[in-house]
Amino acid sequence: MSKHRKRKRGKRFKRRVPAGAPPGTLVSAPDASPSTVRAVAYGPEQVVEKQIADLAQVLELKGKHPVLWVDVVGLGDVKLLERLGEIFGLHRLALEDVINTHQRPKAEEYPEHLFIVAREVLARESILAEQFSLFVGRDFVLTFQEHQDDALNPIRERLRQGGSLVRRLGPDYLTYSILDALIDAYFPVLEMLGEQIENLEIEVVEKSPPDVPAHIQHLKHELLSLRRAVWPLREAVNKLIRDPHPAIGTEARLYFRDCYDHLVQIADFIETDRDQVGSLMELYLSAVSQRMNEVMKVLTIISTIFIPLSFIAGVYGMNFSHDDSPLNMPELYWYWGYPFALLLMFGVAAAMLYFFWRRGWLIALKPGPRPDPNGAADPPGA
Amino acid sequence: MSKHRKRKRGKRFKRRVPAGAPPGTLVSAPDASPSTVRAVAYGPEQVVEKQIADLAQVLELKGKHPVLWVDVVGLGDVKLLERLGEIFGLHRLALEDVINTHQRPKAEEYPEHLFIVAREVLARESILAEQFSLFVGRDFVLTFQEHQDDALNPIRERLRQGGSLVRRLGPDYLTYSILDALIDAYFPVLEMLGEQIENLEIEVVEKSPPDVPAHIQHLKHELLSLRRAVWPLREAVNKLIRDPHPAIGTEARLYFRDCYDHLVQIADFIETDRDQVGSLMELYLSAVSQRMNEVMKVLTIISTIFIPLSFIAGVYGMNFSHDDSPLNMPELYWYWGYPFALLLMFGVAAAMLYFFWRRGWLIALKPGPRPDPNGAADPPGA
Amino acid sequence: MSKHRKRKRGKRFKRRVPAGAPPGTLVSAPDASPSTVRAVAYGPEQVVEKQIADLAQVLELKGKHPVLWVDVVGLGDVKLLERLGEIFGLHRLALEDVINTHQRPKAEEYPEHLFIVAREVLARESILAEQFSLFVGRDFVLTFQEHQDDALNPIRERLRQGGSLVRRLGPDYLTYSILDALIDAYFPVLEMLGEQIENLEIEVVEKSPPDVPAHIQHLKHELLSLRRAVWPLREAVNKLIRDPHPAIGTEARLYFRDCYDHLVQIADFIETDRDQVGSLMELYLSAVSQRMNEVMKVLTIISTIFIPLSFIAGVYGMNFSHDDSPLNMPELYWYWGYPFALLLMFGVAAAMLYFFWRRGWLIALKPGPRPDPNGAADPPGA
Amino acid sequence: MSKHRKRKRGKRFKRRVPAGAPPGTLVSAPDASPSTVRAVAYGPEQVVEKQIADLAQVLELKGKHPVLWVDVVGLGDVKLLERLGEIFGLHRLALEDVINTHQRPKAEEYPEHLFIVAREVLARESILAEQFSLFVGRDFVLTFQEHQDDALNPIRERLRQGGSLVRRLGPDYLTYSILDALIDAYFPVLEMLGEQIENLEIEVVEKSPPDVPAHIQHLKHELLSLRRAVWPLREAVNKLIRDPHPAIGTEARLYFRDCYDHLVQIADFIETDRDQVGSLMELYLSAVSQRMNEVMKVLTIISTIFIPLSFIAGVYGMNFSHDDSPLNMPELYWYWGYPFALLLMFGVAAAMLYFFWRRGWLIALKPGPRPDPNGAADPPGA
Amino acid sequence: MSKHRKRKRGKRFKRRVPAGAPPGTLVSAPDASPSTVRAVAYGPEQVVEKQIADLAQVLELKGKHPVLWVDVVGLGDVKLLERLGEIFGLHRLALEDVINTHQRPKAEEYPEHLFIVAREVLARESILAEQFSLFVGRDFVLTFQEHQDDALNPIRERLRQGGSLVRRLGPDYLTYSILDALIDAYFPVLEMLGEQIENLEIEVVEKSPPDVPAHIQHLKHELLSLRRAVWPLREAVNKLIRDPHPAIGTEARLYFRDCYDHLVQIADFIETDRDQVGSLMELYLSAVSQRMNEVMKVLTIISTIFIPLSFIAGVYGMNFSHDDSPLNMPELYWYWGYPFALLLMFGVAAAMLYFFWRRGWLIALKPGPRPDPNGAADPPGA
Repeated sequence: MSKHRKRKRGKRFKRRVPAGAPPGTLVSAPDASPSTVRAVAYGPEQVVEKQIADLAQVLELKGKHPVLWVDVVGLGDVKLLERLGEIFGLHRLALEDVINTHQRPKAEEYPEHLFIVAREVLARESILAEQFSLFVGRDFVLTFQEHQDDALNPIRERLRQGGSLVRRLGPDYLTYSILDALIDAYFPVLEMLGEQIENLEIEVVEKSPPDVPAHIQHLKHELLSLRRAVWPLREAVNKLIRDPHPAIGTEARLYFRDCYDHLVQIADFIETDRDQVGSLMELYLSAVSQRMNEVMKVLTIISTIFIPLSFIAGVYGMNFSHDDSPLNMPELYWYWGYPFALLLMFGVAAAMLYFFWRRGWLIALKPGPRPDPNGAADPPGA
Repeated sequence: MSKHRKRKRGKRFKRRVPAGAPPGTLVSAPDASPSTVRAVAYGPEQVVEKQIADLAQVLELKGKHPVLWVDVVGLGDVKLLERLGEIFGLHRLALEDVINTHQRPKAEEYPEHLFIVAREVLARESILAEQFSLFVGRDFVLTFQEHQDDALNPIRERLRQGGSLVRRLGPDYLTYSILDALIDAYFPVLEMLGEQIENLEIEVVEKSPPDVPAHIQHLKHELLSLRRAVWPLREAVNKLIRDPHPAIGTEARLYFRDCYDHLVQIADFIETDRDQVGSLMELYLSAVSQRMNEVMKVLTIISTIFIPLSFIAGVYGMNFSHDDSPLNMPELYWYWGYPFALLLMFGVAAAMLYFFWRRGWLIALKPGPRPDPNGAADPPGA
Repeated sequence: MSKHRKRKRGKRFKRRVPAGAPPGTLVSAPDASPSTVRAVAYGPEQVVEKQIADLAQVLELKGKHPVLWVDVVGLGDVKLLERLGEIFGLHRLALEDVINTHQRPKAEEYPEHLFIVAREVLARESILAEQFSLFVGRDFVLTFQEHQDDALNPIRERLRQGGSLVRRLGPDYLTYSILDALIDAYFPVLEMLGEQIENLEIEVVEKSPPDVPAHIQHLKHELLSLRRAVWPLREAVNKLIRDPHPAIGTEARLYFRDCYDHLVQIADFIETDRDQVGSLMELYLSAVSQRMNEVMKVLTIISTIFIPLSFIAGVYGMNFSHDDSPLNMPELYWYWGYPFALLLMFGVAAAMLYFFWRRGWLIALKPGPRPDPNGAADPPGA
Repeated sequence: MSKHRKRKRGKRFKRRVPAGAPPGTLVSAPDASPSTVRAVAYGPEQVVEKQIADLAQVLELKGKHPVLWVDVVGLGDVKLLERLGEIFGLHRLALEDVINTHQRPKAEEYPEHLFIVAREVLARESILAEQFSLFVGRDFVLTFQEHQDDALNPIRERLRQGGSLVRRLGPDYLTYSILDALIDAYFPVLEMLGEQIENLEIEVVEKSPPDVPAHIQHLKHELLSLRRAVWPLREAVNKLIRDPHPAIGTEARLYFRDCYDHLVQIADFIETDRDQVGSLMELYLSAVSQRMNEVMKVLTIISTIFIPLSFIAGVYGMNFSHDDSPLNMPELYWYWGYPFALLLMFGVAAAMLYFFWRRGWLIALKPGPRPDPNGAADPPGA
Repeated sequence: MSKHRKRKRGKRFKRRVPAGAPPGTLVSAPDASPSTVRAVAYGPEQVVEKQIADLAQVLELKGKHPVLWVDVVGLGDVKLLERLGEIFGLHRLALEDVINTHQRPKAEEYPEHLFIVAREVLARESILAEQFSLFVGRDFVLTFQEHQDDALNPIRERLRQGGSLVRRLGPDYLTYSILDALIDAYFPVLEMLGEQIENLEIEVVEKSPPDVPAHIQHLKHELLSLRRAVWPLREAVNKLIRDPHPAIGTEARLYFRDCYDHLVQIADFIETDRDQVGSLMELYLSAVSQRMNEVMKVLTIISTIFIPLSFIAGVYGMNFSHDDSPLNMPELYWYWGYPFALLLMFGVAAAMLYFFWRRGWLIALKPGPRPDPNGAADPPGA
């Protein structure tokens, strides 16, 4: 599994373009999927949906309908991307960012189009998001995904329905719908993480198993990568609202504000979770050290009680010769000598136990009810 | 109880609208209470109060009086909400936020109305706040609560009184009065939390019971959720003051500044409390480790004193044959042998105790007066 | 003493106005002192000083002199305050803040007057500051104190002297003089706190008594409450300098900048002290754990040396029968057996001590000179 | 190796100019390499490349071609630098910064030219970057490197190719190309650091060797120095984009935005790595303390089991005289006495082991499967 | 030495002006040095240098030359300062700040002059800086130092030289030169601190002596006081650059930017050092605890090995009567009994050692090569 992470990390950094190459050089990743293209051209009256085999088909559709949405899945075919770039007049630097799939989410304005990068969370498998790139112009939307994903299917479904809002409005509303679908996918992931955190918290309080720090470390990684996906996107969407690009109509601003609102909410949840995970480590360390202290205390108390007893036994095991002096260990020759010695030992042990009990050191020996993290929540006055 | 928290959390995230559904789709929560509607229409001269059974009654009242306040309790009746939306021209995105009760507090401007979301603290039961949504337009105020609550009753009372300020002024002043009532409800909750923190601090210093970390963790949760309720509302109110919406008259600005002031104060208290709770954990860990150290020291000192004594006893328990050599343990055959051995042991023990006492290690054995966290406050020179 | 703190806290939150009451409702604190009023009316030529029994006297003085200063001590008489509010045209919301003495320091602009809240530090008794409220208008200054205090006496003295600056200038300069006097009172308090911190630091390094964490916690509280008194006031004064209210002449700006400068300095000292107190806890924990480690090491070394010796004694205490076999413990029957055994024990102890000494574990046994926190400051090369 | 670091640090601070000397005094570092100069003059049609022996050659090239790039390697020849400064009209303060190679990255505007300082990462040897200074004017670019480096060779190669973008555009695009090459060199270094961090994390979880804290400390140093190289450069590039200097054409802005984007990405990775390294220390301390606790527990359990057994043996080693009383240790004279004693010991040991096992204290004795930091990532429900 | 610090602290706060005194009251410190005055009047052609005994001499020089620099050393003579204030038209609030030498660095604009406060670092003795005050007007510069210092001598030297830049330019350039000299004095101090930190780090890793926390605490104090000297000055210089006072010509702006640059660099170094010192404490605690753990482990292992051996010896020291039963300790009467017992003990010890070795607990017993904090820097792949 550590191999898996290394792969991800390596991928994060790999710049496939040789250092010093002119900017805008397009080199596809060796493990990129082959590209497939789907186009939907629509307006209030009509909708045409096509699986594209030859980009000439795209050229044909372009300009014929109010909105043309071209969806590319798989980034393996560099030539196809270059061709698309030419058809829609995309800037080479933006195209380079589409292929190098380690971009931070961002919204970059170019004179003819707006370029948006987001991260798509795939709930089914792993939390780390894949790159989702989107171009929006006057009459087109281009989307680029690394792998096939079902998140956009409901949008396609709505496009097919006659009177839907998305059919009546332009490419800006389509852009919003797509972003909204991507953002909505974060909520179940957050819910899952939240549950993991709570389970971990319960585990920490009840058993503090030794793999907790590694688990916490892992959750921190997850939250950090989510954070790195959400925060820059939030900033980018905010920028779009504050000074909008011509490709975003004033009507669509309200909808982008809704997007922004969701992103703020998600960012908020992530921060709360990070905070909570951070204090989990503290809770864990405190629980472990308390448990350890308990063990050591019990063990040490046992030793401490027996050591004086052993001393007494040692004393009466000495070989002083009673024959040479009546002062030498007369106890050994008393009638009640042995019972007296046993009683002495018993008495010492009892006295020590009483002393320990008085000081409250024996409390930990009773495995009382575990502290309940939630029960503690009851206000004292309740 | 942990079940209760899971419910809340789950609720936090549950988006009842299926992912990919068109924005503005209204789906009520399965556990939402049925909706009841109350309307108060008033002006300086007149006040009409009605329990609404049919929304036609609302239409009748609308526009007849300077201010119409419609108060909806329970969000279970989606149709009713949609109808209200049509009557007052509310935006669907805002209506969606009314139903999805996990919104952050915010103030959103729409062309025809202002939409405010706040969180209502219910002191009687739990700290986590329910969502309170409010629309304010030219001549109306709409409020949406999850459950029936008495916080607004004093305002209704004042509306019924003839010459009151709220009767003379418009919907902006009513909005302020409602927000003020919601915000005022935070103070007793903060007071309760403050008392809990202080009790916990006293407990930490005096007894450091093992459930302190869980209690601290819980208080952190509470403060965090309060913070998440107060901070965004503060920002929203501040925004309203800085560039006010047409629905907020310039006269009402002074009053909203008062609201803002209270929110700053509350935020301030929350931060102070968070700070204090944070350093409580430190205090607790230090107290626990000190207590543990004391125990270990006492036990180890007992062992350390008896181990050399046992050694002496062990030496005189050896079986070297005095018969074979006068050098073999002549002490065993002395007249004062046994008393000498006992004195030797006593002397060793006394010497060690003296040594420990000189080094100050026996101080902890005397259970002296507990350190008083407040007594320590006296300036040394006082 | 913990009672005392609870009282303060409680006071902090108590909003005497019943929740939901119309804003601006004046309800005095049950423990508020009765109000006494003193007025000073002055100009470059003349000064009139009066103890006011009836507010009609104030009305008489108003408008007759360039500046009228009314000083109210004790906030128990609500009617008197309401009357004053009417006379000077004070806003009800501001008056409410005067009575609810848990306000953050602030400067609020009203059309006719400027309302400033500060916190007065009373060096003689406790650090927590009382509320000091001040209204300044075209030709008047109103001040409200909770209890009688001598901090303003020097200003009164200067007002009585003919040619003093304060006599020549307007209410803005009087406001500055009063603020300056309040701020100057923070310096001796900071000095006292600084001394406490240093004494505590010396104590930590030298003895680390167990009440240090509670003392640190207390100092943190003090610094926090000072911080909460100083920071908002700094912001408020800064706001007054940046865009001044008509009641503050341009001439007086230089003086308010001096105020601001002092507040920045105080805030700076507080931050430094907070930083220092924060690292004191670290220092303390390190000192305690080191001291504990020393103790445990000494005790464990003693045990460790004696355990092998006891083992040797145990071996020669075994009862193997030499009669049945010449191999059974022949040492017991040697001529030099007992001296040999003693020597063996001595040798083992010496070898272990040497081993421990070589590893540097005996160093802690010599109570060498204590580390000097200041001596360490000498640069190594000095 | 610590010597190496000291050298670097010393270098960081050494200001070779005697304190109080007039500003702009040029004094070369004693260990600076001798200077070699290379010039490339080019335009869309032509390119001239020369190794410069005499600066007169530079004067000849100046103004003859659209762009003149002079590349100086080695900062040992102060006279040459002064001469270049005169030829291109460079400000003395900027020249001083070229020689004092401890500058923070920055972009300084002068009326006639723009002065950029960056830090060049040399992947081959050490992470700490050397200073790279660059002047860009209307028709020239001057670069100053401390040592020969191959990072700029690909740019020279592209300059030699006829139709390349860099040939067609001006000195601003050349500046961008150079900065881009410098920035690209950070990625492999970050990848290397990322791998080190991951290896360290695996090591911490699996073995927690004692050199981890030193390693972590070292990684922190590295990341800190990278941070100090990247953050100011990011700010400088951002400033260039926001209000560009006349030497940077509007066309080139898009390219500088790309630079900025990369720097934001690098800064992001560095922060993530710092975060991760920070929590590694926590993880390490937790792992070490757990490991230690395990050891102590096992050892203490062994002691605790044997101490009561030794006590029993001690009891039956006592010498109470059976001859003088039938009560004195009759067990010693039983037929089954010895087997009974052994069974008693065995029973006590078994009871204690059972007690320890019931409390879960023996779990640590089984060296079970190590916690897997990644395995822990699997969602509980998976 | 702690006395020395107390003195400094006390000085920091002492406001010699009685609380409530009118602002601008000048009261000299009781330990202030007597004042001596030196004047240099110069222009491009001429330079006049005079030791001033009577301020009439200053009046004579004033206005006769383009620049008049009056340098006052020692702040004991209040009358002289008041006189100077009258001659040059200095504001009383600024003069008060000159005498109260606990000002934060700042730049205050007055209509007729600019007032700058900086802190002068004296490398020879202690790090804490003395106050350096400077007034700059149209044709004069006034400087006030607490004690005689040589830092400004090189500037005087340059003034005496005919063609130097400082002679040709105005009081703004002289101001820059003085500030530059003050700032340059920080670099050797930073170098010294950096060396101390590195030595401390080496010490921590190698020996972790117990005075490290106190040393770290002291370094934190030093860095904090440096920080408090540098940061506000940086802000002040930045303010001078952004909107310059009429006393600062546009030409001099470039030079002040150079000052700012140096201050940013110094602030940067201080932050890095603070960061490093902060993590030193962590490193130290980890080293100490590791060292302690090692000691405890070794000691505990020794005990643990001998306790079972002692038990065996105890068993064979029991006095079960073989005469009464053949089952009672027959081993004691075997021919090979004693060798068997010794072998058994040896075997148990060997088995335990093997068990401990297998678990890796004996590694710490070999004092292997110390971890090298720098060696660890080598990339694993190197």
